[in-house]
Amino acid sequence: MKSLLLAAATVAGLATALPAAAQWQKPEDAIKYRQSALTVMANHFGRIGAMAQGKAPFDAKAAAENAVIVSDMAKLPWAAFGPGTDKGMPNRAKAEIWSDAAKFKAASEKMIAEVAKLDAAAKSGNLDAIKAAAGGVGGSCKACHDDFRAEKYSAN
Amino acid sequence: MKSLLLAAATVAGLATALPAAAQWQKPEDAIKYRQSALTVMANHFGRIGAMAQGKAPFDAKAAAENAVIVSDMAKLPWAAFGPGTDKGMPNRAKAEIWSDAAKFKAASEKMIAEVAKLDAAAKSGNLDAIKAAAGGVGGSCKACHDDFRAEKYSAN
Repeated sequence: MKSLLLAAATVAGLATALPAAAQWQKPEDAIKYRQSALTVMANHFGRIGAMAQGKAPFDAKAAAENAVIVSDMAKLPWAAFGPGTDKGMPNRAKAEIWSDAAKFKAASEKMIAEVAKLDAAAKSGNLDAIKAAAGGVGGSCKACHDDFRAEKYSAN
Repeated sequence: MKSLLLAAATVAGLATALPAAAQWQKPEDAIKYRQSALTVMANHFGRIGAMAQGKAPFDAKAAAENAVIVSDMAKLPWAAFGPGTDKGMPNRAKAEIWSDAAKFKAASEKMIAEVAKLDAAAKSGNLDAIKAAAGGVGGSCKACHDDFRAEKYSAN
């Protein structure tokens, strides 16, 4: 079993000796991880957004399933914005993430709270509630991007 | 609300008119999405793997939380391996994904089944059960990568 785990860790490009308090060995690992979580979140929020905007047929079950994924993903990126993860691979993190860390933390918590409302609305199956909650989530995305996401990717 | 949603969709780089049956407008969107889901999954499986291997202290609550994320992510990548998504951005998908689609589907279903066992084991909080289940997941990762993942990224 151990050899399979080791083999899997190797092929997955994972560290085989992760310290408990540092889930990413290199800054680029943290950047790739947070970008990945946000990519998955944006995709599934987009599916709900399409329903909320009437661009896709409303499917209550699909909306609820997508909201669970959005909700799960919303909690993940923040731990990967540790000190020293501004560089390592191209990314759009502004320096303000670290220089105004309290505001960034508040923005992330606002988003998590809005996503929790969306998850509750989606579980209710009520399209009007979903529309209202999706607007809140969208606003929190935009506010954080306006303050903390650069227009262009960094060179490294 | 609609304007906020539209703004959020724009800043997130999302399509504002997603057809219900095509969640990705361009092949690169599908490639980026599936790579992202697999990146998040590998990271959280790695955290459980580190505990299973004794490289990190066993934390039953953390293992269970990580297993939920692994379980959620395990279901996502496959829909994004549609026809025509072999190119669009650098990726490691082998042609066999499409030429031997039945085998690829079976490999993905094997992984989902092994991940479900890991989730159940993690919920039980029993480290030996987690070790056994993690070995099964690791084996399913490796088997699929051996057959369907190229050594190097494609040029586009």
